[in-house]
Formats: sequence, C-alpha cells, structure tokens
Amino acid sequence: MKKLLAEFFGTYWLVFGGCGSALFACNFPGAGIGFVGVSLAFGLTVLTMAYAVGHISGGHFNPAVSFGLWAGGRFSAKELLPYIIAQCVGAVAAAGTLYTIANGKAGFMIDSTKAGAFASNGYGAFSPDGYSMQSAFIAEFVLTLFFLLIILGATDKFANGKFAGIAIGLGLTLIHLISIPITNTSVNPARSLSQALFVGGEPLSQLWMFWAAPILGALVAGFIYKNLLQDHSEA
Amino acid sequence: MKKLLAEFFGTYWLVFGGCGSALFACNFPGAGIGFVGVSLAFGLTVLTMAYAVGHISGGHFNPAVSFGLWAGGRFSAKELLPYIIAQCVGAVAAAGTLYTIANGKAGFMIDSTKAGAFASNGYGAFSPDGYSMQSAFIAEFVLTLFFLLIILGATDKFANGKFAGIAIGLGLTLIHLISIPITNTSVNPARSLSQALFVGGEPLSQLWMFWAAPILGALVAGFIYKNLLQDHSEA
Amino acid sequence: MKKLLAEFFGTYWLVFGGCGSALFACNFPGAGIGFVGVSLAFGLTVLTMAYAVGHISGGHFNPAVSFGLWAGGRFSAKELLPYIIAQCVGAVAAAGTLYTIANGKAGFMIDSTKAGAFASNGYGAFSPDGYSMQSAFIAEFVLTLFFLLIILGATDKFANGKFAGIAIGLGLTLIHLISIPITNTSVNPARSLSQALFVGGEPLSQLWMFWAAPILGALVAGFIYKNLLQDHSEA
Amino acid sequence: MKKLLAEFFGTYWLVFGGCGSALFACNFPGAGIGFVGVSLAFGLTVLTMAYAVGHISGGHFNPAVSFGLWAGGRFSAKELLPYIIAQCVGAVAAAGTLYTIANGKAGFMIDSTKAGAFASNGYGAFSPDGYSMQSAFIAEFVLTLFFLLIILGATDKFANGKFAGIAIGLGLTLIHLISIPITNTSVNPARSLSQALFVGGEPLSQLWMFWAAPILGALVAGFIYKNLLQDHSEA
Repeated sequence: MKKLLAEFFGTYWLVFGGCGSALFACNFPGAGIGFVGVSLAFGLTVLTMAYAVGHISGGHFNPAVSFGLWAGGRFSAKELLPYIIAQCVGAVAAAGTLYTIANGKAGFMIDSTKAGAFASNGYGAFSPDGYSMQSAFIAEFVLTLFFLLIILGATDKFANGKFAGIAIGLGLTLIHLISIPITNTSVNPARSLSQALFVGGEPLSQLWMFWAAPILGALVAGFIYKNLLQDHSEA
Repeated sequence: MKKLLAEFFGTYWLVFGGCGSALFACNFPGAGIGFVGVSLAFGLTVLTMAYAVGHISGGHFNPAVSFGLWAGGRFSAKELLPYIIAQCVGAVAAAGTLYTIANGKAGFMIDSTKAGAFASNGYGAFSPDGYSMQSAFIAEFVLTLFFLLIILGATDKFANGKFAGIAIGLGLTLIHLISIPITNTSVNPARSLSQALFVGGEPLSQLWMFWAAPILGALVAGFIYKNLLQDHSEA
Repeated sequence: MKKLLAEFFGTYWLVFGGCGSALFACNFPGAGIGFVGVSLAFGLTVLTMAYAVGHISGGHFNPAVSFGLWAGGRFSAKELLPYIIAQCVGAVAAAGTLYTIANGKAGFMIDSTKAGAFASNGYGAFSPDGYSMQSAFIAEFVLTLFFLLIILGATDKFANGKFAGIAIGLGLTLIHLISIPITNTSVNPARSLSQALFVGGEPLSQLWMFWAAPILGALVAGFIYKNLLQDHSEA
Repeated sequence: MKKLLAEFFGTYWLVFGGCGSALFACNFPGAGIGFVGVSLAFGLTVLTMAYAVGHISGGHFNPAVSFGLWAGGRFSAKELLPYIIAQCVGAVAAAGTLYTIANGKAGFMIDSTKAGAFASNGYGAFSPDGYSMQSAFIAEFVLTLFFLLIILGATDKFANGKFAGIAIGLGLTLIHLISIPITNTSVNPARSLSQALFVGGEPLSQLWMFWAAPILGALVAGFIYKNLLQDHSEA
C-alpha cells in the first residue's frame, strides 16, 4: 500500500510539475521558460521523486516504465495493474489541481481545437509543429525504448545504481528537449491520459497512440536489455 | 551556535542568489536569464549550501522546512524558534545587501504598486500573471507539501542520503519553473518576509499568505510522510 | 559482442538526441530550445548512456574517444576498429531515423548549401557564424583535447570514478555551449559522418577535418595525460 | 610539477570555456545561449576539471581560491605563489587561443571602449548594466566570500566530499547567474587579468578591483569558516 501511495504521489508530481510548467510558465512574455524550462521541469519531477520515494516503490510513475521493467524481468506481472491504476489516479488528480489553479486567472479556458491545449499530446494537426502520425509514432516508440534502456541499464547490478535517479530524470529532460515539437512529448501513458481527459475532442481520440507507442517501445527495450545487453553472471 | 550561523549564511545566500538573480539578470535585454535562470539560481543556492553547511545545521534555510521536519519527527520543537529567527535575520540582511547594490545603478527605485517589485511575492493584482488569491494559496500549499516530501524522502535512512542536496536543490528549481508566474514563488516565509519589508504597501499586506500556505503545506507533508510513507523498521 | 551493441546504442542515442534536438526543437518560434538546449541534449545523451551501458563497453560513443583512450593506455589497439565501426553504424542509423521523422512534416527538405543543414558540421561558408578553416580546426582540436583530459582524469584510479558520467556528459554540454557557432560542434567523427552522408555536397567534402582535428586532439591528450599528469604509483 | 600543470590546464579551460562561450555563443541571433548559457559554461569548466584533475592539484584554478584555502588553513603559504603563476599563465594562454579563433571571423576587433569587450570585467561605465564601483566591489566581495564558504564547507572532512566538484562548479554557475550584469562576473583574478591584457585601456585600469575584492572576500571567508563554522573535533 505504501508502494501505491508512492506511485500516486510521484505521478501526481510528474504531471503537476511537468504539465504545470508548460501551462503557467512556458510562454510568459519576455522571461518565459520555453521548451528548455519545460524539459527541465519534467526531468526534475522524476529526479526528485526517484530520490524521495524510489526506495519505497522503485519510482516508476509511468505505466510504460512498469511494462518495460516487467519485460526486462525486474517487476512482477501481478503488480502491474495496481501500479498503473495508482499512476493514472495520481495523474488525473494533478490535472484537476492544475485546472483549478489555471481557472484562477481571468479568461482561462481550454481550446480543444488547438495543438497542445492544456499540455495534451497529439499528432498531425495536433502536433505542435505539424508532424504526421507516422513520425509521431516512431518518435514516441524510439524515445520510450531508450528511456527504458537508460532505466534498465542504470539500475543494473553492475552499474552505479545510486546515480540512477540522476540519469533517469535527466534522461526524461533530454527526451523532452528532442520531441516537444513533435508530439508535445508523452513517453508516459498516464500523463497523456490525464491531460486528454480534461481536453476531450480530437486529443482524446488520439490518446490510443500515447498508450500504444510508449508501451511497445518499453516492451522492446525490456527484451533487448535482458537478452542482448545484460550480463547474467553473479555480481 | 554554529548551527544558527550556518542557517544565517544559508538563508542569506538563498535570498541573495535567488532574489538577486531576479533583480539583476532576469530581464537584461537580449541575454537575460529569464525564469529558467532565476529558477536555477534559487535551486543552486540550496544545493550549494546543503553540501557546504548541511553537515552543520541540517541545511533548512526556510521556516517552512523547519516546521515540516518537526512535523515529520526529524527536528526538535525547542530548536524551531532559534532556527526561524536565524533564517529571517539572514534573509533580511541579504535583502539589505541587494538593496545597496541595486542602488548603485542610476534610476533605481522600488515601485511598490508593481507585481513582483524587488522580487516580492504576491497574488491577485500582485501576482506576476494575475492569478487569484485562491489559486496562489493552492499553488504555494501544494508546492511546499511536495518540497517537504522530497526533503523527508531523500533524507530517509533507507534513501541515498548523500544525493539529498541535489534532489532538494533541484526540487526548488523545479518549484520555481512551475510557479514564478503565479506568486513569484515563495514556499519560504523568510524569503517572502525580507522582500516584503523592503517593498511595503500591498505586498507587505499579503505577506500573511506566504507564511500560512507554505507552513500548512509543510505540516501536512510531515504528517503524510511519517504516517503513510515512512518505513519505521530498523535500517 | 555486448560491447559493440552498447557502443551502437550509445552512439545512436548521441546522434538521435543531440542532432534531433537541433533539428526539431532549436528554432521553434517563441519557445525554441536554442543552443543552450541543444548543448544540454548532446551532453545528456552521454551522461545517460554512460550510466546505462558504461559498465558494458566503457561508454565511448565516439571514435576520437576510443583513439584518445588508446593513446592514454586505457584501451587496446585491437578493439579500436570494431568500436569505431559500431559507433559509425549507430550514428548513421540514428540519422536515418531522424530523416524519417523529419520527413513527416510538410515541406521538409535538406538544403545542402546552407551552413548547419541537417545538423551537419562545417567551416568557412559552412560555419554557422562564418569562422575560417583555421579557427575551426583549432577549436575542434582544443575542445577534443580537453574532452579527453576530462575523460582520462575523471576515470583515473585516483579520481572519484563514479562521478565520471556526470563530468564527461556535462563536459560535452560545455563544449557545445562554446562552439556551436564555430563548427556546429563535432569533437566526434561518427556524429559528423552520419550527418554529412545525408547532406552531401560541400559539408561532405569538409568531413575530413571533423575526423582529423578531433582525433589529433584526442591523441595529444592521451600523450599529455599519461606522461605529464598521471600518477603511476599503486592506488 | 604535476600540480602546477594541472592548475595550468584547469585555468586554461575555465577561461577558454567561460569567456569563449561569452565571445562566440552568447549573442548568436535567435539561438544564442545568453547569460544562462555563459553561467553554465563557467560552472561546468570547474565541475569538469575538479573531477578530472582535482585529485592532482586540489583544483583551485583561481588565485582567490588559493588565498581563501590558505586563510582557512587548508593550503600552505609556500605553494601560493607557484599556484597563482600557473593559474595566470593558463588564463593568458587561453585568452590568446580565444583571440586567434575569434580572429578567424571577418570583421573581428576588440573595442576597448565598450563594456564587457572580449569578456572583460568592469564597473561604472564598463559594467554591462551600469553599476557603480561601490556596487561592483560589494558584489565581487560577497560572491567570492560565499564561493569560498561553499568550497571550504563542501570539502570539510565532515561533509560529503565526493560531491564537492558538483557543489563548487554549480556554485560558480550560480554566481554568474546573479552578477554578469554587474561586473561581467570575475570572482577570479586570473580570469580578469587575461581578458584585461588583451583589451587594454580602461578595463586594464580597473583590473585592481578584480584582484582586491575577490581576494579580500576569500580571506574573510577563510577566517569565518575556520573560526566560526568548522568543527575542529576528530572526524
């Protein structure tokens, strides 16, 4: 139960901090944080929570990570569903808080016809820079695959495991530095779900891809790491 | 006594570096550091002082942190008041130094009718981007709550405690990346006090909130961590 | 074989993340990541992969690094060629993926007459800010020399080797912060090769320099570190 | 001798990377790194070299640091002069390399009547944002004082010494985030010397202050740390 609460808080923080920085601070006139700031924010949510509650739950905060760790032989199948539910509940709770805060500024509304509305993910006309569905799928697939390679490698018993929180958190920063213009960056189905629920419309219809591509990339990474890279000898 | 001096220096540095970067460098034409730079600066004051004097005083530099650690069972009640006084004295001394330096530029004056004047915190008409009192309260409450979860978690005996300075410092960077437009970001009553004293007027009248919301958030975090997340078994 | 696969994945990630951030996100209107973001991205590809697969292959991801480690007495001559081939294959595979994704945006094409096209390196008319061949050569030589000094020093048996991934990764960020305007920053022959192959034309004709200068700098660094700086006593 | 060579390389890298990023990349149209990038660059020169050659020479790269460590009882008086000479020679050699590279761009010249020319330090009319001599002196004094507190504290036998390179390097980043508009940021007499020599004129006449203020701040910090903060019991 402590584990699920840790996943709830961690995923809440990921969505509150990452999507919150995008909503409140990205485009502030003259001093806005831009995509560099949003990328840092997403990564730092994971870095901070990895050191804060990683010792409780392992620090997934992302259904694709849970799937990938399962495929890599590091996580049990029977914990998958409870973890994913805790992550999704945390993400939706964070989106609700963001909505409440945003509502306190005059003139706030969500325009569900606009790419990236309420920090939602999308492709085609809903890609921030107009990338096709195919490009968006490849990007989300490749980026999540490497995210899981980083996670599986940095937490390997032969690696410097204490630095994993830094490598994984800043890995998520890197992923956002590359791909915000392509899909507004998901690599995390829970993060996509929470924002799409509040936006509705086309972004909600496109949600399937932000579950399919990240989870597929994570599963492939788990297979690759376990079978091709991992040293299975005793530590 | 060494502890109080360490808290004095640490909080001086937090205000001098964080608020100083906002005053001197945020809006420099063409190359200003913007909110990304100010966020980095605030976080790095804590990261640097945590490694420099954390081994002396624990490295709070913030009355809300002292309250939260007390609520989490990590800090004694009888040390609360001396720590908070040392923090406030350090913050005010730093604001005085900033005032002296700023005065050396032709045309400097503090316009207390302007949101964020002299790096002060505020809500409503004094929120940098016009967020209501309610939104500002929720933001400060949630952000300080998570700041304390990070602190309590990263310094847990089961965590990688040596990385706590990185997680906590960069956690403060993250908090600023999210919320400078909402309240100019406090999560630290001493930092709010020092700037409000030099500005006066409405920002000083709003100071109550930047004590109430952060301390309340910190107390709730202490309660949550101790009762719901912490593993009380032997290390 | 695991080693070569690790080098393949690491160099793929370096090109995909570093060049990808330049292609997709550098100049996004209003919130683009600029050279700060691209510099961070390049560095974080190495930081993340150093902690992820450094324990497998040593984490070179760069032919100049392999040469420099050989000159410094840390890497065997017979592994040089296989490593370099794996690195080049990874780089080219990443460039192909980038090309496929970029193609999914309407109007994409590579203009091989423009400096920095498809994140290629260049000098003279193909230097982003118009630096001469001589300046470009000196910059690439000096920067790679120091990159190898950082690598050789941070992995010395007398150094805090566990932090090497941070020092080396952020060292690459620093190198990009200095020199993107000069050559679009190489210090990595594999990264230069992959982009030049897709651009062709003059950038491909200039490719020789982005093999010669970095490898020469790396060899000099290996000589300097081994003969002038290294303490050869027992640890 | 290895020590002096390490100080030579470290200070060369500090000036080449820090001042180089300012000269080449700060104001690149549309994607320039601004003061955030320059601040990162200065800090990363120290972070990288601290992990690379800190185990050889202690990693000062700055006459004020050597003075401060001497005042704090961590460095012998008889090593002061050789260290400072090695630092100054390294700084001047780096400035010469920067000059050579910069010369390879059409139209390059140093305008010694302009604040911050060739990354020089200055006050009054030569302060980037017009701060008075008094403000500049206070800023340089306070910032170097805290830089030394960070160094002395982070390398204390009771501190997590392995993280010192991160705290000190990012501390220098923080110092630049605050003060580039005030003095173009020195806190390092060798760095000021090298740039002033190439600029001449008024910036050279102002050089006295960028020796006096940092060294004075460093000496005060050494006194404060040793007498008021340090725990002199056995570790």
